[in-house]
Amino acid sequence: MAGTKDLLLSEISSPVKDSESKVTVVGVGQVGMACVFSILAQNVSHDVVLIDCVEDKLKGELLDLQHGSLFLKNPRINASSDYAASAGSRLCIVTAGVRQREGESRLDLVQRNTDVLKNIIPKLVKYSPNTVLLIVSNPVDILTYVAWRLSGLPKHRVLGSGTNLDSSRFRFLMSQKLGVAPSSCHGWIIGEHGDSSVAVWSGVNVAGVRLREINPSMGTQQDPERWDQVHKEVVNSAYEIIRLKGYTNWAIGLSVASLAQSILNNSHNVHAVSVNVKGLHGITQEVYLSLPSVLGENGVRSIVNQCLTEDEKQRLLKSATTLDDIQKTINL
Amino acid sequence: MAGTKDLLLSEISSPVKDSESKVTVVGVGQVGMACVFSILAQNVSHDVVLIDCVEDKLKGELLDLQHGSLFLKNPRINASSDYAASAGSRLCIVTAGVRQREGESRLDLVQRNTDVLKNIIPKLVKYSPNTVLLIVSNPVDILTYVAWRLSGLPKHRVLGSGTNLDSSRFRFLMSQKLGVAPSSCHGWIIGEHGDSSVAVWSGVNVAGVRLREINPSMGTQQDPERWDQVHKEVVNSAYEIIRLKGYTNWAIGLSVASLAQSILNNSHNVHAVSVNVKGLHGITQEVYLSLPSVLGENGVRSIVNQCLTEDEKQRLLKSATTLDDIQKTINL
Amino acid sequence: MAGTKDLLLSEISSPVKDSESKVTVVGVGQVGMACVFSILAQNVSHDVVLIDCVEDKLKGELLDLQHGSLFLKNPRINASSDYAASAGSRLCIVTAGVRQREGESRLDLVQRNTDVLKNIIPKLVKYSPNTVLLIVSNPVDILTYVAWRLSGLPKHRVLGSGTNLDSSRFRFLMSQKLGVAPSSCHGWIIGEHGDSSVAVWSGVNVAGVRLREINPSMGTQQDPERWDQVHKEVVNSAYEIIRLKGYTNWAIGLSVASLAQSILNNSHNVHAVSVNVKGLHGITQEVYLSLPSVLGENGVRSIVNQCLTEDEKQRLLKSATTLDDIQKTINL
Amino acid sequence: MAGTKDLLLSEISSPVKDSESKVTVVGVGQVGMACVFSILAQNVSHDVVLIDCVEDKLKGELLDLQHGSLFLKNPRINASSDYAASAGSRLCIVTAGVRQREGESRLDLVQRNTDVLKNIIPKLVKYSPNTVLLIVSNPVDILTYVAWRLSGLPKHRVLGSGTNLDSSRFRFLMSQKLGVAPSSCHGWIIGEHGDSSVAVWSGVNVAGVRLREINPSMGTQQDPERWDQVHKEVVNSAYEIIRLKGYTNWAIGLSVASLAQSILNNSHNVHAVSVNVKGLHGITQEVYLSLPSVLGENGVRSIVNQCLTEDEKQRLLKSATTLDDIQKTINL
Repeated sequence: MAGTKDLLLSEISSPVKDSESKVTVVGVGQVGMACVFSILAQNVSHDVVLIDCVEDKLKGELLDLQHGSLFLKNPRINASSDYAASAGSRLCIVTAGVRQREGESRLDLVQRNTDVLKNIIPKLVKYSPNTVLLIVSNPVDILTYVAWRLSGLPKHRVLGSGTNLDSSRFRFLMSQKLGVAPSSCHGWIIGEHGDSSVAVWSGVNVAGVRLREINPSMGTQQDPERWDQVHKEVVNSAYEIIRLKGYTNWAIGLSVASLAQSILNNSHNVHAVSVNVKGLHGITQEVYLSLPSVLGENGVRSIVNQCLTEDEKQRLLKSATTLDDIQKTINL
Repeated sequence: MAGTKDLLLSEISSPVKDSESKVTVVGVGQVGMACVFSILAQNVSHDVVLIDCVEDKLKGELLDLQHGSLFLKNPRINASSDYAASAGSRLCIVTAGVRQREGESRLDLVQRNTDVLKNIIPKLVKYSPNTVLLIVSNPVDILTYVAWRLSGLPKHRVLGSGTNLDSSRFRFLMSQKLGVAPSSCHGWIIGEHGDSSVAVWSGVNVAGVRLREINPSMGTQQDPERWDQVHKEVVNSAYEIIRLKGYTNWAIGLSVASLAQSILNNSHNVHAVSVNVKGLHGITQEVYLSLPSVLGENGVRSIVNQCLTEDEKQRLLKSATTLDDIQKTINL
Repeated sequence: MAGTKDLLLSEISSPVKDSESKVTVVGVGQVGMACVFSILAQNVSHDVVLIDCVEDKLKGELLDLQHGSLFLKNPRINASSDYAASAGSRLCIVTAGVRQREGESRLDLVQRNTDVLKNIIPKLVKYSPNTVLLIVSNPVDILTYVAWRLSGLPKHRVLGSGTNLDSSRFRFLMSQKLGVAPSSCHGWIIGEHGDSSVAVWSGVNVAGVRLREINPSMGTQQDPERWDQVHKEVVNSAYEIIRLKGYTNWAIGLSVASLAQSILNNSHNVHAVSVNVKGLHGITQEVYLSLPSVLGENGVRSIVNQCLTEDEKQRLLKSATTLDDIQKTINL
Repeated sequence: MAGTKDLLLSEISSPVKDSESKVTVVGVGQVGMACVFSILAQNVSHDVVLIDCVEDKLKGELLDLQHGSLFLKNPRINASSDYAASAGSRLCIVTAGVRQREGESRLDLVQRNTDVLKNIIPKLVKYSPNTVLLIVSNPVDILTYVAWRLSGLPKHRVLGSGTNLDSSRFRFLMSQKLGVAPSSCHGWIIGEHGDSSVAVWSGVNVAGVRLREINPSMGTQQDPERWDQVHKEVVNSAYEIIRLKGYTNWAIGLSVASLAQSILNNSHNVHAVSVNVKGLHGITQEVYLSLPSVLGENGVRSIVNQCLTEDEKQRLLKSATTLDDIQKTINL
């Protein structure tokens, strides 16, 4: 007997399988879910798949999101512990991993999370051989390197969320000091995401006016306004928020959604993301550090050559050496 | 000595205090934060204040949101345990309250959450005498009544999120059965938010085609397709998701953001929300139940008179009596 | 010598060619440009190509749009008189054709615009063999048939903008009479776009409440409120606006953008669009008329079987015969 | 006898009059309509009033927009030749005026358009005493001065669209040369909107990297890459597009919508807009020229003090003198 659906609708064509803007997010913890929700609420993609191994949590998050479909322009949302569900993704975002504990340095997490990636990356690449991989798990720079190695993908197709978030934190704090919108406050935090990130003071500007021309000691300890504290506050942000609420999620979710948008829309926006920096700024090792990069459909389209001071370069080189030393100890 | 800001900028006018779309959200638990984040990420308001008494959590959420400002079109976000920060809000959303436990009925929460509202509502109204009050805390129908009584506001300025979420859940499940987008699947869940909600089967339609004309037994136990299970699934959703992930947040957040948008934009959209139903469908008590309502800047502009069956009316009346009985026991 | 670009940027990967949401719009008259602008301003696609044979006008529109890129989230916008520029489009929208003159019936335009399509359709299909074709040129129903025949595409991949606009006009007028938002006023205008369109009064509802149950004479001449005038006003809208401002553009542009969104996002929303109706409602000819249809990535996913009155069916059949008679006279 | 509306709806509260984001646009020519449509399509305001004295055209535009309400999130759109309809606007945008002819300089239009403003400005201010006035009509700098004088408003509440558009044109052309998104290409065109605008080469940067540090001759005739041609192209854009399509509309519409958004949302974004520059950069006359300005609810919050070269300053001063000379000849 014909059911309601058959009586209501005359089928004209078969359903399509996978859409062209499919995004997979691995890991449905606080960070993963904030990424997924930002992507859906800001209409960055209308086709999102969640992957995790904790079935109950995964199902609960799926249902909760699906119940909001009406308010999200009718996206397709799926979830599975089986990576086959991720097939054909244009972007895979990896947030899985053990969470940074209060007071724990990002580097301490390396091997534990490398082992997590060993299970994830090959499956993602198997089902989506043309995907761009965006790593969010911490310590993000090393794990992006690990993901690149595990994936076998060309280096422009693997990147890490890096200091895109640190830069947005800096721009917010700068906006508070100046009374100017964050999107009109320009400043770049580069290098290692976390404790040894580098604030490029020469690039800090509003409407093309370098603040260093107004305040030449900006960023140094001689600065009576102590703008160096702004950078320090950026570095401490994650620790502070973890202390206050137990984890960070909203800003990293929005930050990742902004990267996803630039990639899916092939927009060629510049973001500070963790990229393979071998050969840049004198770095000789195969390490990933954040530099301002032009993002498009293929991942990293190009990297901006900033005019760094000798001190800034030294700090990058030091990070590169530190990361390389750790990378050598990883059991890949 | 002039600082960087003074050298960079020539001040032309003084800053303004409060914007015209200011929204206050009381309670920064999972539900409150999902409301705030949905409102910001979907650009429903660019001026949001968070109120809570847990200072650390509040500060952590504020920082985390502010760090995402760059990606949210530069909203103003504030937070305080002092209600003075909410002054001049056009909409106050109350999500505070003890959370529904696994297996707990919504009604069990009544007195505990009434006491919470006694502390909140008078302060909100003191600082924003022209606000619309939107209650989300559960059991939402009774607490909306409580808030109305405590506020002294006219009844159109106090409403509850009610079955706006239940209806969106119904429409999603309907969309899954039919292969039609949720926004093109129409169905209304009314009455009490929760176990005794009423599915108005006569209104279930796609493109104006009543499914009951195709399947006359729809919603009854005689229906071979058992559409009544869809309603049952809606009723069980909260319990199921709480069992799976510990709480619900995304869909209720999006649902509340959709209500906020209709109110702030004075859009006159119809939503199933908890309103004062005395005098409608034969209800004689001062109780709040969800009915399809036209929302605008003043809150509830009008209520749609649905053509209910005798059975549907009886179930509404029964809910009204139940709620009224409970209300009589509340210590306001 | 290395130029600024080479010094500024380290190229990491090659540029990509065509994006996955590429849309081509043929015809840069008032309607075509309103379609393009709606699609860009509402972020329906970030990759749009304009095709026209009037080179100056085409170049002028391209520059004018490109100069607004900053405010449109950095889309890719291209224009050419060579159809090679349209290669790989997922959706091709045809607005080219001689414009309807004041007082001219849509049917008078047939052969003139058929000749226009003969030049357009084969080239579009040659360069984008997997495209969906959306015809907007008038008389839209016949021209959609013509485009289908000329294209050789399966019927679900060819559709016309049809009465999606008429229905939105009806819903706006209904909203004015009721004080309810257009998106909460439901009503469907089907059949032939223009003078002989059919208002399906049985489907007119707010929150699932059929207005015909409240006002049984609605739509007839016996109705003291004369709702039939609302439909008459819809029919006269194009003539009226052409008389007042010389052409219509905004509403048709937005209407087409809404169809493009449902197609590109595979959203399965229901729209009244011109589809091949052979075999439906007793129609035996290969004609295109508007019926509520579920749209997705492949074009028409299914068609809603409305419960039409005998009178409504007869009017559809009459339109079908009229269109078929005209189609027989076309020199394809 | 009760009508359908009364039977369908139980009225709970009275309708509200004016919303808090009301925007009036005076002039429904190509520029005015592109402003209105951009504001509606990008959801900058949900309450727009059109004012013009050509009744037919005005009515035609109103109907055409209203018929698209369904696709615009249900805004309120009104139109009238009576300024009473504009009452309570937070922002009034003036696009009325005689259009610049092919080859005509902007300055030639002055007295003709001053006379137009004499009729408009006092009525706008009468009905919306707290409004911000945004002048778009050309020659924009002088007409903004004229509007300021006619309005009696404080100078921060009157501004002109100025070189916000010129800057976006520059950034687009820069993006084409570099392969970087316009929103990541930073450059400022200031001074007089039109032939004598000034490109501030020192501020041209990507990710904080000044292109002048890479290419020190940028902007001069010695530059082998001839970036000065980019500025020349910006200056010629309007003439070129007017030659090609008869007028410019899309980019100016989007540019104005971006200003409206910053004002209505109190976002404190920086835009190059025409402001009262007396006392800045050594200018002694009461003239309006574009400088990067922080915009908020009150209009101009502050102006960025750029570090201009002597040559750039001289060109500003020359513009100031030219404008002042013309202003003295105007019959206000």
